[in-house]
Amino acid sequence: MIFNKADIENLEKRFRTAFINSLGGFRQAVLVGTKSKEGQTNLAIFNSLIHLGASPALFGLISRPDSVQRDTLQNILDTKEYTLNYVRADKYEKAHQTSARYEKGVSEFDKVGFKELYHNNFAPFVADAVVKIAMKLEQTIPITLNGTILIIGSVIQIEIGESLVGKDGFIALSDAEVLLSQGLDAYFVSKPIGRLKYAKPE
Amino acid sequence: MIFNKADIENLEKRFRTAFINSLGGFRQAVLVGTKSKEGQTNLAIFNSLIHLGASPALFGLISRPDSVQRDTLQNILDTKEYTLNYVRADKYEKAHQTSARYEKGVSEFDKVGFKELYHNNFAPFVADAVVKIAMKLEQTIPITLNGTILIIGSVIQIEIGESLVGKDGFIALSDAEVLLSQGLDAYFVSKPIGRLKYAKPE
Repeated sequence: MIFNKADIENLEKRFRTAFINSLGGFRQAVLVGTKSKEGQTNLAIFNSLIHLGASPALFGLISRPDSVQRDTLQNILDTKEYTLNYVRADKYEKAHQTSARYEKGVSEFDKVGFKELYHNNFAPFVADAVVKIAMKLEQTIPITLNGTILIIGSVIQIEIGESLVGKDGFIALSDAEVLLSQGLDAYFVSKPIGRLKYAKPE
Repeated sequence: MIFNKADIENLEKRFRTAFINSLGGFRQAVLVGTKSKEGQTNLAIFNSLIHLGASPALFGLISRPDSVQRDTLQNILDTKEYTLNYVRADKYEKAHQTSARYEKGVSEFDKVGFKELYHNNFAPFVADAVVKIAMKLEQTIPITLNGTILIIGSVIQIEIGESLVGKDGFIALSDAEVLLSQGLDAYFVSKPIGRLKYAKPE
């Protein structure tokens, strides 16, 4: 079936949100850990992680100003630091629950039951995450078309099980059953098909 | 094991590229179809699709200036239009092959064996794609930190099998075995775990 621009605009609001969000496809589910200026910890699930480059190692995140991700954005702007945490798929209910609108003085770590882990008093990591990445804020870019914000950070530390890192650098996230998501509320694991050689014209 | 900033910078170049790319996690694999000013068609795989918003429906793509995606970027800038195509996982070898550095006068559609499909003389779609999205360029944002470019477009048409669209708008991409990727060369399908309700504080 075909939806043209007017069809899309005329969709019922909640239907359209689910439709366009899920149309964006599969994403890495990432728990973003931050601390406020006052030391209050915060944990929020994002599905907008973007690899921007390997040298320097830069990742992006999209923040919506009208969402629960607002506390996360404010903490990142205030402290310039945050953590990216990938959890195993069996944690999907706890991961999803971090998207609830808890009050500002409440830590999602406590509420959903993820344990905090600290390295040198940096922003909090999720203790049992398979991958734990420490990020330093480099730049925020406002996307004026719809009021979202691209948060760009550099990778300053990576913690990962040695057995997951291949000889060529490839990280076997699938072996660790890392959680992925689609749309607002659907969760998945990955099933490998194969790796291919660098493609060349025949 | 822990990699700090200096460890990451000192990694051998190809190892670091694979390591940081694969660290970015699982992504939707998307084939971007374009046409040059002269009418030459082009098809390139991207793994940087970003959902920016549902109203208006906006998606982003990251383009690296030094890559084969350069032709795609030039065509988008020249014609202001492009297509996003999701293919089934069994097409992963053909999809990957679009990343080869073919000469400018060569169409990846022909070379890798994807059939072009046209709606009203718009940029080319992949005929047997599960999801076909027509995009209009809205804005490009240079990311000066590393010379990449964020391409923002609005969704102007969506073509999809009716059976994949749920009553609530959710698109069952997993049922269609849509291709996902990680890093530069690894391909996957998704295995559903579950969908959850809108999360509220208990």
